[in-house]
Amino acid sequence: MRNDSRQQNQLRPITIATNVNKHAEGSVLIEFGYTKVICTASVEERVPPFMKGQGKGWINAEYAMLPRATHSRNQRESARGKLTGRTMEIQRLIGRALRSVVDLQALGERTITLDCDVIQADGGTRTTSITGAFIALALAVQHLSKTASFSRYPITDFLASVSVGVIQEQAMLDLNYEEDSKAKVDMNVVMTGQGKFVEVQGTGEDAPFSRDELNALLGLAEEGIKELIAKQRDVLGEAASRIGEKFK
Amino acid sequence: MRNDSRQQNQLRPITIATNVNKHAEGSVLIEFGYTKVICTASVEERVPPFMKGQGKGWINAEYAMLPRATHSRNQRESARGKLTGRTMEIQRLIGRALRSVVDLQALGERTITLDCDVIQADGGTRTTSITGAFIALALAVQHLSKTASFSRYPITDFLASVSVGVIQEQAMLDLNYEEDSKAKVDMNVVMTGQGKFVEVQGTGEDAPFSRDELNALLGLAEEGIKELIAKQRDVLGEAASRIGEKFK
Amino acid sequence: MRNDSRQQNQLRPITIATNVNKHAEGSVLIEFGYTKVICTASVEERVPPFMKGQGKGWINAEYAMLPRATHSRNQRESARGKLTGRTMEIQRLIGRALRSVVDLQALGERTITLDCDVIQADGGTRTTSITGAFIALALAVQHLSKTASFSRYPITDFLASVSVGVIQEQAMLDLNYEEDSKAKVDMNVVMTGQGKFVEVQGTGEDAPFSRDELNALLGLAEEGIKELIAKQRDVLGEAASRIGEKFK
Amino acid sequence: MRNDSRQQNQLRPITIATNVNKHAEGSVLIEFGYTKVICTASVEERVPPFMKGQGKGWINAEYAMLPRATHSRNQRESARGKLTGRTMEIQRLIGRALRSVVDLQALGERTITLDCDVIQADGGTRTTSITGAFIALALAVQHLSKTASFSRYPITDFLASVSVGVIQEQAMLDLNYEEDSKAKVDMNVVMTGQGKFVEVQGTGEDAPFSRDELNALLGLAEEGIKELIAKQRDVLGEAASRIGEKFK
Amino acid sequence: MRNDSRQQNQLRPITIATNVNKHAEGSVLIEFGYTKVICTASVEERVPPFMKGQGKGWINAEYAMLPRATHSRNQRESARGKLTGRTMEIQRLIGRALRSVVDLQALGERTITLDCDVIQADGGTRTTSITGAFIALALAVQHLSKTASFSRYPITDFLASVSVGVIQEQAMLDLNYEEDSKAKVDMNVVMTGQGKFVEVQGTGEDAPFSRDELNALLGLAEEGIKELIAKQRDVLGEAASRIGEKFK
Amino acid sequence: MRNDSRQQNQLRPITIATNVNKHAEGSVLIEFGYTKVICTASVEERVPPFMKGQGKGWINAEYAMLPRATHSRNQRESARGKLTGRTMEIQRLIGRALRSVVDLQALGERTITLDCDVIQADGGTRTTSITGAFIALALAVQHLSKTASFSRYPITDFLASVSVGVIQEQAMLDLNYEEDSKAKVDMNVVMTGQGKFVEVQGTGEDAPFSRDELNALLGLAEEGIKELIAKQRDVLGEAASRIGEKFK
Repeated sequence: MRNDSRQQNQLRPITIATNVNKHAEGSVLIEFGYTKVICTASVEERVPPFMKGQGKGWINAEYAMLPRATHSRNQRESARGKLTGRTMEIQRLIGRALRSVVDLQALGERTITLDCDVIQADGGTRTTSITGAFIALALAVQHLSKTASFSRYPITDFLASVSVGVIQEQAMLDLNYEEDSKAKVDMNVVMTGQGKFVEVQGTGEDAPFSRDELNALLGLAEEGIKELIAKQRDVLGEAASRIGEKFK
Repeated sequence: MRNDSRQQNQLRPITIATNVNKHAEGSVLIEFGYTKVICTASVEERVPPFMKGQGKGWINAEYAMLPRATHSRNQRESARGKLTGRTMEIQRLIGRALRSVVDLQALGERTITLDCDVIQADGGTRTTSITGAFIALALAVQHLSKTASFSRYPITDFLASVSVGVIQEQAMLDLNYEEDSKAKVDMNVVMTGQGKFVEVQGTGEDAPFSRDELNALLGLAEEGIKELIAKQRDVLGEAASRIGEKFK
Repeated sequence: MRNDSRQQNQLRPITIATNVNKHAEGSVLIEFGYTKVICTASVEERVPPFMKGQGKGWINAEYAMLPRATHSRNQRESARGKLTGRTMEIQRLIGRALRSVVDLQALGERTITLDCDVIQADGGTRTTSITGAFIALALAVQHLSKTASFSRYPITDFLASVSVGVIQEQAMLDLNYEEDSKAKVDMNVVMTGQGKFVEVQGTGEDAPFSRDELNALLGLAEEGIKELIAKQRDVLGEAASRIGEKFK
Repeated sequence: MRNDSRQQNQLRPITIATNVNKHAEGSVLIEFGYTKVICTASVEERVPPFMKGQGKGWINAEYAMLPRATHSRNQRESARGKLTGRTMEIQRLIGRALRSVVDLQALGERTITLDCDVIQADGGTRTTSITGAFIALALAVQHLSKTASFSRYPITDFLASVSVGVIQEQAMLDLNYEEDSKAKVDMNVVMTGQGKFVEVQGTGEDAPFSRDELNALLGLAEEGIKELIAKQRDVLGEAASRIGEKFK
Repeated sequence: MRNDSRQQNQLRPITIATNVNKHAEGSVLIEFGYTKVICTASVEERVPPFMKGQGKGWINAEYAMLPRATHSRNQRESARGKLTGRTMEIQRLIGRALRSVVDLQALGERTITLDCDVIQADGGTRTTSITGAFIALALAVQHLSKTASFSRYPITDFLASVSVGVIQEQAMLDLNYEEDSKAKVDMNVVMTGQGKFVEVQGTGEDAPFSRDELNALLGLAEEGIKELIAKQRDVLGEAASRIGEKFK
Repeated sequence: MRNDSRQQNQLRPITIATNVNKHAEGSVLIEFGYTKVICTASVEERVPPFMKGQGKGWINAEYAMLPRATHSRNQRESARGKLTGRTMEIQRLIGRALRSVVDLQALGERTITLDCDVIQADGGTRTTSITGAFIALALAVQHLSKTASFSRYPITDFLASVSVGVIQEQAMLDLNYEEDSKAKVDMNVVMTGQGKFVEVQGTGEDAPFSRDELNALLGLAEEGIKELIAKQRDVLGEAASRIGEKFK
């Protein structure tokens, strides 16, 4: 049995509160169990230098943890004077994942920056961040759609993410911190509303894994992500109505 | 009349939620109107190098704003690779203020770090941080008192802070962002439960101020800080009981 | 009695030599007792990015100490790769103070940078710097007035600064290093020629202070600053004649 | 047909020269087509601080490209003053992958650092680096085995890596730069001599991918990695004899 | 006798391979004994900000060593976050030396960057770099001459460099690492094809040297550099034909 | 004729004031014409990590210019966050030069740091710094000799430095800034009291130079340095008496 009495294929309790920030164009406080992340979407009417003059927009993500989000306090990256490799890796992943469901041409020459700040961590901060950032992004695009006229709606599909892992020869969904520490294989999966993969990152640092294990993990992840996307849809309500309208 | 209909000597609505972080020894989410700050206190059983071997403890503070705490997004200091002068100034102020009510000898060779992270900003982030950090500190010391035996209780008095300013020749208490932008004189006051000053920082960049104006501002600040300390006492409950016991 | 035999309300010997740098538009070597600071004013015909296109000028200050200005050698901030919080705080203070007596509109789109480099330190380096930087600024503006035509004279008033503190229950003027180390309360005051405050920064890290103590300190500071401004007027001679001409 | 006339499941020409550095304990110049990487293994008789006193060793990897390894010149990371996210991500991947086939306990309190320096880049620099770094590591461990006595041989299995991708609906093995730019899905796979996965990193930034596509890509990668491991075995000769002896 | 059996006035074996990089406009792998350096020349059709609008070009050099180029591994400068003084000094020297034989006016508004990356070090890395960088530069200018029309050929003379030193009262040519460690006087000389000095940098940290010793060292260096220039001429072949054509 | 009416072999007016800093163990304000440098020597009873346990001392030098030492203001290196290559090169040169006349064994496990801060620059700041730093060093060692007992006197010889250059085919001694800008060849020479060279750094960036020109420059430099050493001897008085006593 799992240390929090969940079934092997059961997500932690998911809580999502939208519009938690009075300044941001989109914002959400999302919780996967004890992991809590504030995601804000900030719209700017300009693109980074490398994107200029292409008539396309850009989606950027940044990720950080408050120093005491974790069991013992971590030094601030601002005080260290540089980002850790872990932070860079995670924010590159979040940005790449979100861009996969945005039609940058349709967005126009704008940048939307997703800030994912982990207030409390208990495993799965990157998957919680992606799932929450998608909601903040959707809210910001809906907000933008009131003043900007889009030829096509810029969000092409839903997007959510979950972790899976192998613990004592068992595949498990949505690992918490204690489980993550014990897992021999650890995988993060990002999937769209259409059920396609955007990212599959599996690591067997402690023990390599077989094709069968990989398949079992992907199966669990698909289930979990479907549930998460259903929750996103609920929470977004009206803001979800035009997402992926080209598929309809 | 003020832009949020307050009286000249009226604080914004003050909200304080304690123990908002499952890992930290003390934590609080404090709101002065729309300004929201998470303060955590982290206890470590060691002191910084410059304090070693003196049998004394240390209190350290760090301050940051989430990128979208403000009206438009600010670059992260971790991405810039260094702290701004404003951040350094504020965290030095918070640390110095809190140390004034801690008996470092009584604390013993420990460091308590207060992290003040501004989730949403609407003026007065440094005064909100000091007021909240004191609560987180008091909770952490109470928590510590369950296992450590103190010869004297290390917290010697209450401590809170508020801003005051002159707007259109009128002294005002607890400025919000819009007021702060219009104020000709801007002052931050930190005071103890005994009614003594720990910090008085008045700045007349836009217009110098007279001794009379200074006195009017200090009067307002005293009133406001008394109210804040009453709220701290309420919220701390049992954890307040030994604070400043030497005065009793 | 004080360790250098001064009266409680007596400044240290003040020495001011002007035009000590052949390149700078204004320069001064100022000494408050053993504290020696070189202040230079550099005029540039451009403003920082955030001030562009407003038809206004800017005043900027930088502060540093030579490594062996102090009793034991300090590491260079250039070798550390970043400024300390103390340096940032001081240079922000100097800049803010000087801007309070400059009519930026009248100055036009120019930047004057005040560099305050402490050659030898014995307490009061920030107050010595402000007092000296004002003189360098006044010399640079006079120099500029020979070629630029100002609609109004850009310097609106005199400005000087002094420290005060409480040592063994006694308020003292212009603390030297040894006094500063023993002071329970430490205050830096910046005042104009019209006798108004520009900055009041009082800190009671070791012991909080009462309203009465604050008043006694402000009284001493006012006296000291009047003397300093008299010296500035003497030294500036002709260069002082148009300062604050709107008040006449 | 592919731009270099290869079959869909064909590796580029693989060239491996060992002992190319007279100082390093193990070294290799490895080429996957036009991609050339120098990998050196450096043995140090100490471990990083976080590993001290555990009786275990550590494997660390660093990755860099010469400025003109690429079509147009890139700024040096030493001149920029920090590593890019891409570099950090790659060197974390290389280190993690190699650690999966090292018995750190058997290695003892030593660090082996693998430096992968890309001399010329034409796609697949991270997979070339992993494949080459394994050889340098194996040479260094063999070299070490002459003087150190290991209770068990510290290398537990072979390890190699290859990229696969989907171009115009076709799965392709070992993409070169031009192919990589056109691929809709891009995957890096790291596998052991026993045919198990150590890392699977698939990204569909331009287009999400299905379970079937994933399976096709994994199939191709398995084939390619088997070939690469056969080449490693050839090149290592005697130095390969004790690798994974526990499986025998 | 020397530790590698050379005569006092004998260079180490010199090996030069050109066009070793498929991307760079000019490239060379040069070896002075066990010292191996890859030099690439990269042409960009722009000049640094300080050179803009002068109708002149610029030559820039960068230098680095792979971490394991040396006997024990060195930390990467990218990981340290800054260049060492040694690296800065060397790359300034290389750039200055090469500019002395380039007619920047004739080159036009272009920058040629010479990257000298030391693959393996055994003393004399800076002299090997200068000698190799000249070849890479000559190849790049020849390459450029096929598309750009130069009013005058931009390379005005050959250029090579060698080290000399005094070991046990004997002047020696082209010191290897072991010799360099024992030398009391150490000198690097850069000379042109016309036999004139561009740089003479002699250092007697361990023992000052006399005018006679200086003269003996310069004599040896002249001999060695003549040999090196003969080798450059051979290797460049056709690419050498227009160098210094104004002298002919 | 020279722009300041000097003879070709004439130094600028040299002014040396000793003990200008009340904290430093040795200090000097040295002027070569308008070039003014404060040199302080700081003694610490420890050595850098790489020198520990060898029973030897260390001499370290740092160099900086005040921002307005030059005609137009330079950005502070502390604000840039790193040292320029020029600064690094100069401080390495100063340290190396001074170490050549110090018997590190005799000094014992101590570090003497020479800080050379250029207050005003008009060419020759590095040669002025070396010449002044030697005096500060000599004063510090004399000061130290009152409390420490040296088996041998640690300073083995005098040391001074001057620049020479070729302007319009004429060799000139001690170039000022305007001359330096016009010089085709520029050389800095460091020499001992025994008339031996410690550093010879000649650069012909604008035009290579012949052996004859080199000899003429060295001749001028020798003359100039002899004069400088005579002045050092005068100024040091008693503190000079034991320098190089082994030669007597």
